Amino acid sequence: MPLAWNRYGKARIRLVKLRRVLPAHELVDLTIDVQVEGAFDAVYLDGNNQSCLPTDTMKNSVYALARRDPIDHVETFAMRLAEHFAGKPAVSTVRIVASEHEWHRLDTAGRPDRHAFIQPGCEEWTTEVVRANHGTRITSGLRNLIVLKTSHSRFEGFLRDEYTTLEAADDRIMATSVTAAWLYREGAADFGARERIRQALVATFAAHDSRSIQHTLYAMGEAALAACNDVSEVTLSLPNRHHILVNLAPFGLDNPNDVFVATDEPYGLIEATVRRSE
Amino acid sequence: MPLAWNRYGKARIRLVKLRRVLPAHELVDLTIDVQVEGAFDAVYLDGNNQSCLPTDTMKNSVYALARRDPIDHVETFAMRLAEHFAGKPAVSTVRIVASEHEWHRLDTAGRPDRHAFIQPGCEEWTTEVVRANHGTRITSGLRNLIVLKTSHSRFEGFLRDEYTTLEAADDRIMATSVTAAWLYREGAADFGARERIRQALVATFAAHDSRSIQHTLYAMGEAALAACNDVSEVTLSLPNRHHILVNLAPFGLDNPNDVFVATDEPYGLIEATVRRSE
Amino acid sequence: MPLAWNRYGKARIRLVKLRRVLPAHELVDLTIDVQVEGAFDAVYLDGNNQSCLPTDTMKNSVYALARRDPIDHVETFAMRLAEHFAGKPAVSTVRIVASEHEWHRLDTAGRPDRHAFIQPGCEEWTTEVVRANHGTRITSGLRNLIVLKTSHSRFEGFLRDEYTTLEAADDRIMATSVTAAWLYREGAADFGARERIRQALVATFAAHDSRSIQHTLYAMGEAALAACNDVSEVTLSLPNRHHILVNLAPFGLDNPNDVFVATDEPYGLIEATVRRSE
Amino acid sequence: MPLAWNRYGKARIRLVKLRRVLPAHELVDLTIDVQVEGAFDAVYLDGNNQSCLPTDTMKNSVYALARRDPIDHVETFAMRLAEHFAGKPAVSTVRIVASEHEWHRLDTAGRPDRHAFIQPGCEEWTTEVVRANHGTRITSGLRNLIVLKTSHSRFEGFLRDEYTTLEAADDRIMATSVTAAWLYREGAADFGARERIRQALVATFAAHDSRSIQHTLYAMGEAALAACNDVSEVTLSLPNRHHILVNLAPFGLDNPNDVFVATDEPYGLIEATVRRSE
Repeated sequence: MPLAWNRYGKARIRLVKLRRVLPAHELVDLTIDVQVEGAFDAVYLDGNNQSCLPTDTMKNSVYALARRDPIDHVETFAMRLAEHFAGKPAVSTVRIVASEHEWHRLDTAGRPDRHAFIQPGCEEWTTEVVRANHGTRITSGLRNLIVLKTSHSRFEGFLRDEYTTLEAADDRIMATSVTAAWLYREGAADFGARERIRQALVATFAAHDSRSIQHTLYAMGEAALAACNDVSEVTLSLPNRHHILVNLAPFGLDNPNDVFVATDEPYGLIEATVRRSE
Repeated sequence: MPLAWNRYGKARIRLVKLRRVLPAHELVDLTIDVQVEGAFDAVYLDGNNQSCLPTDTMKNSVYALARRDPIDHVETFAMRLAEHFAGKPAVSTVRIVASEHEWHRLDTAGRPDRHAFIQPGCEEWTTEVVRANHGTRITSGLRNLIVLKTSHSRFEGFLRDEYTTLEAADDRIMATSVTAAWLYREGAADFGARERIRQALVATFAAHDSRSIQHTLYAMGEAALAACNDVSEVTLSLPNRHHILVNLAPFGLDNPNDVFVATDEPYGLIEATVRRSE
Repeated sequence: MPLAWNRYGKARIRLVKLRRVLPAHELVDLTIDVQVEGAFDAVYLDGNNQSCLPTDTMKNSVYALARRDPIDHVETFAMRLAEHFAGKPAVSTVRIVASEHEWHRLDTAGRPDRHAFIQPGCEEWTTEVVRANHGTRITSGLRNLIVLKTSHSRFEGFLRDEYTTLEAADDRIMATSVTAAWLYREGAADFGARERIRQALVATFAAHDSRSIQHTLYAMGEAALAACNDVSEVTLSLPNRHHILVNLAPFGLDNPNDVFVATDEPYGLIEATVRRSE
Repeated sequence: MPLAWNRYGKARIRLVKLRRVLPAHELVDLTIDVQVEGAFDAVYLDGNNQSCLPTDTMKNSVYALARRDPIDHVETFAMRLAEHFAGKPAVSTVRIVASEHEWHRLDTAGRPDRHAFIQPGCEEWTTEVVRANHGTRITSGLRNLIVLKTSHSRFEGFLRDEYTTLEAADDRIMATSVTAAWLYREGAADFGARERIRQALVATFAAHDSRSIQHTLYAMGEAALAACNDVSEVTLSLPNRHHILVNLAPFGLDNPNDVFVATDEPYGLIEATVRRSE
């Protein structure tokens, strides 16, 4: 029976490319699908893979081409990819679909930061009130506050055992989705503190000279407590949204903190409560 | 066997409250959970519901209390709810969890609009490049651009049949999540047009004197085409994010466009392509 | 500028229809989209709604037609809907998309139950081990065990206050997604108990003469403890997946527990821990 | 200010372990969280990482321990993990959370297959009816039919270019979530064919000696057409749910198709339409 139509490719290739344009960094964050159509009947009918470029190769190609050329407009990068795959055997049509995830520069101290970013993403402000016989407990917070910094983040000198392969990093991308919850003292009424606490959290994230997510979490917690006297403790939960440097050496390319794959799973998760000392 | 712990309540009560403070409107958008603990053993062990306030009543109470009082801080509204349910039989502890979905005023013509809002929510910019033998087709767009207006929206004079119960509305909330895709003319290179087109879409949404989602969609499409000469057509997909006025009459309360329930499903879906006339 | 293409309709209409065929009940659970295309230019260009059937009417029509006719195959019901909307003014094309959510009869005591059902849906088995200086705590469980019964469920005699509008029900659909977690005694090793406990939970759900979710939760907890001596307590979390009887009276139709709308939000949430008495 | 509480670890480690017990294979599919609490104040307050085992090492440890020991009960594997991490410096409490994703043996030809599995996961049956002036088009299908086979799947002899690093595989896990849509001939009425077509799809998936997803897709399409004469074409969409063999060589361990990481993104996507020849 005839093959009336066929298409194959790689879906949801995650690409983050940094531009270290002095004095400020820039960031492009894309999810890309590559799809080709063509005369692939022998692959389907006969199991003959001679014309079948692996979808794994498509993924590699996206990262290599991202390293070779700057990405000014997503459209021109997508055209460049389409041209590349159109040159492969049997291909008649190439479809590139890209979606760009926006990052804005973090506004700290009234001006845009040079290497810290925020992603406007479904941020919510939360409140929990628990009223029992012995009193009422009020906790406010926020979640889905997504931030990323391209500088002042290192992770070195950590514990090693027989299963450790991670290399120390003296300059890495640090990204997280902040969940914060601060407990108000009994009788507090300064519920307008939310904006102030939020600003303390993001400014500290941006400015901190980080030795680990834990290290930055503590600094953020301290800053939150400093921002509102009515708050007695703050709990922060910071998933580590890993950005992994792509190994381009097999393609004869270097990768000086330029092209990353953003991963969802698994992720580090760092949580702690900082309490005001009495 | 003993009941070691118990809790029940209503989860994810969706509440939108408008404040028609002249000259501008304000908006509070909350998702609320009500939970109570207490001496409810007879409900569980014996099926005796005498002390069991229905979770449906909890939902009604949230809407009624939202109508009665202004909501300044979510914390004070949550405390008010906790106090209300703490007075019910058998209840020992009340837990109110609220999450607030942020809306910012739409910035149109360089200043904040008085009754149009945007929700920063995972907006993405999209590109599709299809390269075939006969040419290359470039479509750019955006999705998850969530907007809402509290004025200048009506829906009247529509077709009625034997299954029509909808009443005409001369003043309603209109909310949608815009998906747009614009096709570039062959050879176009003005890929910086995205920001201009996006601004045309939101400004038109805010300003349009709407007789239906369809009517506003067409105006938005026209504005997008006017914003960029390199675009030959634009397709818009506008889900109608219904905000339904809560019927508070059973509680002796009026509801003059004040308290709404935001619903996810089902939803109206309006789609069309506006093409530049040759 | 011309309208090159247009389509509108209602998306994600949730319909559950019961067939009380003696001696056993049958269940059809659908999510339906209705979409029409046609000569609707005046709606878009002029804001003239004369030919515009509200999407709310489309929803009502689906429920009314579901009441009028039995649903044997989804295909024939979708054809019936398409025929209905094709007769409306200006419509040239009707598209009906339906997805059917499967329910299988619950297998209790080795044979299919007559009015209890299970939805094979991403059920997971869970384990939590917490090891601290003072010992190790092992809790196992399951989640996403989705069950529904069409008989032996009532909710009557409950507490009423000024915000209560719910009517007592002596025969309703009861549906939930079971989350269970059972704590093993220190030193327990009977980790093969999962299947036995799961079977006790579903058999009790099916057989219980329920006066409330709470009432059934307790019976399920007792049954779980009876199924495994190594378990010292069990916590159950049962969201009430409300199935609301559609009011068809405006269309001159009765609705004797036949046509329901399945709703996601808000939902009742009932939680408790049943502990083995010492 | 003091650290009132702290916890860190790795979340959502995906582990698939095969047991090639002759004559049949067995499968364990887990998502695991590792979390430790302890005396980590220096990490948070001083940025001193001396006691901080990287979460990347936690992930590696899970895979290595999964290779070392058989997994009989998830509880005992979780206890083994807890014991391992409890021995690390500064750790006072270890929490292991595991969720097990169920796989059942595929039932083909009336008996359980020895190396093909199905995951009961939100499978839906779909129907689309499009009624226009020139006729009615009826397409039925299914989605979220999740299947996996541990044998009879290879991918070799494929096209290579400068970006190809993939190695040929003569024995790999093949897993997919089937989406199928079959078009009925005009006037067809055999809507009871769904079960027959579904059975043809899964039996072919299990039995096929696969040289690629494409190759198996075509065989499944042919089988679907053979199962119902009223169907004129069938479109299949098969995402390749990659299971990647974990490299355990750094830990002095081999990995003979035993321990895999299941990945969500990116994924290959193979789509085609097989049409009945006239």
